[in-house]
Amino acid sequence: MTRKIAILGATGSIGRSTLDLVERNRDRFEVTAVTAATNVEALADIARRTGASFAVVSDERRLPDLQKLLAGTNIRPAAGEEALSEAATGDAQLVIAAIVGCAGLRPVMAAVEAGRTVALANKEALVTAGALMIDAAARHGATLLPVDSEHNAIFQCIAGNRSQDVSRLILTASGGPFRTASAETMRSASPAQAIAHPNWSMGAKISVDSATLMNKGLELIEAHYLFGLASERIDVLVHPQSVIHSMVEFIDRSVLAQLGSPDMRIPIAYALAWPERIETPAQQLDLASIARLEFESPDIERFPALRLAAKRLRRAARHRSSLTLRTKLPLEASSPAK
Amino acid sequence: MTRKIAILGATGSIGRSTLDLVERNRDRFEVTAVTAATNVEALADIARRTGASFAVVSDERRLPDLQKLLAGTNIRPAAGEEALSEAATGDAQLVIAAIVGCAGLRPVMAAVEAGRTVALANKEALVTAGALMIDAAARHGATLLPVDSEHNAIFQCIAGNRSQDVSRLILTASGGPFRTASAETMRSASPAQAIAHPNWSMGAKISVDSATLMNKGLELIEAHYLFGLASERIDVLVHPQSVIHSMVEFIDRSVLAQLGSPDMRIPIAYALAWPERIETPAQQLDLASIARLEFESPDIERFPALRLAAKRLRRAARHRSSLTLRTKLPLEASSPAK
Repeated sequence: MTRKIAILGATGSIGRSTLDLVERNRDRFEVTAVTAATNVEALADIARRTGASFAVVSDERRLPDLQKLLAGTNIRPAAGEEALSEAATGDAQLVIAAIVGCAGLRPVMAAVEAGRTVALANKEALVTAGALMIDAAARHGATLLPVDSEHNAIFQCIAGNRSQDVSRLILTASGGPFRTASAETMRSASPAQAIAHPNWSMGAKISVDSATLMNKGLELIEAHYLFGLASERIDVLVHPQSVIHSMVEFIDRSVLAQLGSPDMRIPIAYALAWPERIETPAQQLDLASIARLEFESPDIERFPALRLAAKRLRRAARHRSSLTLRTKLPLEASSPAK
Repeated sequence: MTRKIAILGATGSIGRSTLDLVERNRDRFEVTAVTAATNVEALADIARRTGASFAVVSDERRLPDLQKLLAGTNIRPAAGEEALSEAATGDAQLVIAAIVGCAGLRPVMAAVEAGRTVALANKEALVTAGALMIDAAARHGATLLPVDSEHNAIFQCIAGNRSQDVSRLILTASGGPFRTASAETMRSASPAQAIAHPNWSMGAKISVDSATLMNKGLELIEAHYLFGLASERIDVLVHPQSVIHSMVEFIDRSVLAQLGSPDMRIPIAYALAWPERIETPAQQLDLASIARLEFESPDIERFPALRLAAKRLRRAARHRSSLTLRTKLPLEASSPAK
């Protein structure tokens, strides 16, 4: 049986990796809708290639061009926020939410309110509206599957366990290009130095956020809303090799970790196929060649963004202490049968 | 609801760790039977402390002493192989099979044939009679839960996944006290040097087997029967710190690893409470303090036991290629609901 999927942000890095996996597994997935911010040429091409019936460009000024590109096809072109939300619901069973930044918030919320399964690659949706999103997911029976490599790692480690048996989440951080740099060096760093991430090839915005550890701060907030643990139970551990993508400690002091080569197709594939798995072309992990994995505590003096995120989260948790902030569905649905 | 358990080999290292956990969780477990090889004093003491109703000493010559020690109690004393098998069945729901060596084979088989859940700390049962044991488990609906830290790690990593999504098992090996020693040094090593395991405190026999990597060879065979993968899909990776207890690679190239401090109460607790977890007094893992995890390929020239085990296994697999060697129950029972 094929799973119908909508790809929001199909022309970006996550969108393209998703398309690669979908094209390798045409028997399992059917793309129903695709969206892009402005790049109508790439969008029209993707819509045609995947057989999607609906293509949406966020920027309404690009609609005439999209209409021209799709003339004579069965693909319906549209533009603007309303159309994005329509793409996020429609007949898609699984929505890949890969629109960068806060622009992704409204369509993700639309998918959640329609009770869809949402593979969430957009961290801003949870950072800016986590409580609303989690409440809506619980109310409408939506399932949130994390795609961010750290949160996807945690999700993989929790599968097969009861959520109440989790005692601590350990988010790993590469430490970025300035891990060993002094505060003075960082102050005079160039943009080129800031986006030179040691392990992952990502967009410029997230690369800069990784250099300041602001990205890890956002991930702390994301983890809090996704997994429902207080900030005191979410640690950040610097691990320069980025081989361990994150870990979960359980009440018996057992720790599970997810490892892999730095290829976003692994977490995307897990979200696409969950609770099953599909093959990916990612490189096999060879720990004997890697030879060494290192760990250190983060320096919150040089990287104050981390401290600020934890502080913000402690306030949020206090503010909402009477509410259950847990996404029940993914955790509970993957518990073993009794 | 309490789970009724029988502890075979209650006076040994695994038995005592089991008792420690049972005593910390008296509301969850009820000990029905305990056994020991010869130490009737310790056995009688354990039987009294746990409230077991049946105490068996393997060595029949020690029965009169056991009878004297238990006189005036409601605990029934017995001795010999028949009585051991009775202890392994009776009204126990979960049997902790911690008798060292081949002496454990018959009672384990009795528990399997009675369809019990067996927490298997005895590796000889699978090494010497793996095919018989797995066939019997399938026929009688028994569940085998591995207690050996490596196999328990693999079992924890597989939980929440379909067994067909597993592509490779990676058994970690500390490399033992002679990891960097030359063949000459090993030839002239003393027993004291051979039992000086760098990470785990274990009995002398298993410590010597760890020094030669014979233990890892036995574990390779054990893994083959427990998880039903061909020897080509079970790798051994030397990891001197023994922090990662083993790993599982899935078809999407994602790798899950189980980590923890070197405390057998963690895997025992997992087997006792599975599919739930219970708290243990094990030390919390602190990777920032450990700072570094190392990995290297095993040297099968200096450690030929590993090569011999793989060779033996390839023959076994060929010999029994028409049979399903998989313990279906633990793997399938822990798959997520569809």
